[in-house]
Amino acid sequence: MRVVDPERFLADLHELRSFGAAGVGKGVVRPAYSEADIAARQWLAERMRDTGLRVEVDPMGNVFGLAEGPSLLLGSHSDSQPEGGWLDGALGVIAALEVARASRAAGGPPVSVVSFQDEEGRFGVTTGSTVWSGLLPIEKADGLKDHVGVTLADARAAMAGMVTGEVDPGQFTGFIEMHIEQGPTLDTTGEQIGVVTDIVGIRDMKITFEGQQNHAGTTPMHLRRDAFQAVSAFNSLLEERLRNVVTPQTVWTIGHVSLHPNASSIVPGRAVFSMQWRDADADRLVRMEAIIRETAQDVAAQRGMQLSYGPMLGLEPVHMDAHLQDALGRAARVHAPETWRKMPSGALHDATNVSRLMPVAMLFVPSIGGVSHTFEEDTDEADLVVGLKVLAEAVRSLA
Amino acid sequence: MRVVDPERFLADLHELRSFGAAGVGKGVVRPAYSEADIAARQWLAERMRDTGLRVEVDPMGNVFGLAEGPSLLLGSHSDSQPEGGWLDGALGVIAALEVARASRAAGGPPVSVVSFQDEEGRFGVTTGSTVWSGLLPIEKADGLKDHVGVTLADARAAMAGMVTGEVDPGQFTGFIEMHIEQGPTLDTTGEQIGVVTDIVGIRDMKITFEGQQNHAGTTPMHLRRDAFQAVSAFNSLLEERLRNVVTPQTVWTIGHVSLHPNASSIVPGRAVFSMQWRDADADRLVRMEAIIRETAQDVAAQRGMQLSYGPMLGLEPVHMDAHLQDALGRAARVHAPETWRKMPSGALHDATNVSRLMPVAMLFVPSIGGVSHTFEEDTDEADLVVGLKVLAEAVRSLA
Repeated sequence: MRVVDPERFLADLHELRSFGAAGVGKGVVRPAYSEADIAARQWLAERMRDTGLRVEVDPMGNVFGLAEGPSLLLGSHSDSQPEGGWLDGALGVIAALEVARASRAAGGPPVSVVSFQDEEGRFGVTTGSTVWSGLLPIEKADGLKDHVGVTLADARAAMAGMVTGEVDPGQFTGFIEMHIEQGPTLDTTGEQIGVVTDIVGIRDMKITFEGQQNHAGTTPMHLRRDAFQAVSAFNSLLEERLRNVVTPQTVWTIGHVSLHPNASSIVPGRAVFSMQWRDADADRLVRMEAIIRETAQDVAAQRGMQLSYGPMLGLEPVHMDAHLQDALGRAARVHAPETWRKMPSGALHDATNVSRLMPVAMLFVPSIGGVSHTFEEDTDEADLVVGLKVLAEAVRSLA
Repeated sequence: MRVVDPERFLADLHELRSFGAAGVGKGVVRPAYSEADIAARQWLAERMRDTGLRVEVDPMGNVFGLAEGPSLLLGSHSDSQPEGGWLDGALGVIAALEVARASRAAGGPPVSVVSFQDEEGRFGVTTGSTVWSGLLPIEKADGLKDHVGVTLADARAAMAGMVTGEVDPGQFTGFIEMHIEQGPTLDTTGEQIGVVTDIVGIRDMKITFEGQQNHAGTTPMHLRRDAFQAVSAFNSLLEERLRNVVTPQTVWTIGHVSLHPNASSIVPGRAVFSMQWRDADADRLVRMEAIIRETAQDVAAQRGMQLSYGPMLGLEPVHMDAHLQDALGRAARVHAPETWRKMPSGALHDATNVSRLMPVAMLFVPSIGGVSHTFEEDTDEADLVVGLKVLAEAVRSLA
């Protein structure tokens, strides 16, 4: 296999960020099915054809560049958050393109490329790969709406002209997704490469405490059933109770709180808040759920609240394929001998869905300051190139 | 003085609720300067004229029915919350009308009536009486906007046709406001009359914790600067620290919380929340402020937050006039001998503003279930009539 070309790779990566350029730093505004997203996918399809790959686009708008016969699939997504960084998803797609190009020039091994659609969740979470993996029928997905009420069916009609048909997953021997870490671990330790061991599982649900809305001047403290106080008490008690169950990798978050009526002179009668927890161990997710529900019930009983739960989103942890992990680890030892580590992925990725179809693995490079989903997201170009070389070396060694 | 007529009083009270009737229970939708509010004020002016009072309307839309010469002023407000009850304000206005009517029929003492405008705060808090009391120049008030951006200047133009000019407060010897309690005290004890001792003072401000917005999957717990966690910690710590300073009548409330970006998968980077506290003792309000600021600073320091404060609204406690209070107490002993009490008002009222101009007092009747600012607000009609009789008796005794 001919070596990859870092300059060509970086040039392509910078060209991709011209589609939907935010004009703020290197940021992009390229949400799924937007004009900028579709233009980027057309450009990408051109690049795939130039590389000698056969372009196929499935009904969801996932863009594939296919090698002949059985091949290893590399890629990620090219849609962005409403205010996104230039590397989130784009890095994995362009690295895949460069490795496929180098591989074709060298006469093998066969490498195919994919850019999944709507990983960033305009219509859900990793919508394009969810449908491709068979978990969600496209007829059902079509009814999903974005936050202004546009259906996925209407949104994807905008790229109907590119669609060629279904793409058979049976032709791929495995999937490797390179991605920015989107967290602080590598940046904090000064390391360059993370070989992912697991993508953590997630549980996410809304919890509602319903107390009594009252006047904040005339209602004595001892007669209040204040829904915000219930959330605060739940939060404190939960932290105590989780302490003996969690590991340093476990995370839990109350990221959304909605009080009713949310006015400074009114004792809040209702609080709806999100409870999300993530861990690489499926059993621990279950133990945490029991503690969360018990704590909410205890607080509701103590404070005269009615308690209800929204539907629970549940995604099981996904273990990366051992053989693919080993290939990435060996390659990391070559190109980043003292500066790589094994680590879990705290973020969801398309690889979670693809794991239903084939062996998968993931490779991380650092995020400066650990930040992502913002125009400021960035990675040292030297680290991007090390990531590219590790990916190429792993692909070579698997041949 | 001829006795008041309970049936005529109740009939007027029910007729007033036909203006802006919500169609839900006895509720009304009659916010300041709305069509329903202006129609109600025109009806009220008619009723005042029928009673032999001279109607004057000041530029804010406060409607006065004036007796000749020096007189005692009775009244409250007839605007409502966006979803209001039939008695909040209306009770005090119609009771005043009935007492003035009975008093005129009896040849004295002279009683004037007022319905203040925008007590419910479409443009602030007790806006009409604030301007009348001289605290806020009308030119400044004119720039205030409601929550959809309409200015007070534009809103009050709708009732310009009713305006007669300024109304001189010098003609009034005192002000008595009858009102529903809007809290649970009388309803809980089964009492019928509350003679108000003080209107509590209020402090209200927004507090902002600014931490670091982060991905809820990739950011380890120990590296988070989670703004919601800061609010929760502040809330718990504040409760501990206030314990030795407050009385059973002191209240404090976090009624508004706004997280940014308020998404379940993102560690909140910013939290803006309201902190409001009320007490009848001005010194205690100051001591509480010191504790609140110290607690916020401690939490900010512990958790790596930037801390900032919005402007603080401050209203000092108002003591009711001893002479007027005594008259109400004596009258309560006549009409509710075992079922009255002295109590503070935890809610703000127009009387707070009027106290800048003359001696003031207030009289409460129970709120069923302690609820107000909702269509369900109500009071037993027998209690309304007892309140009316106490008011009339106090007025008679003051002559």
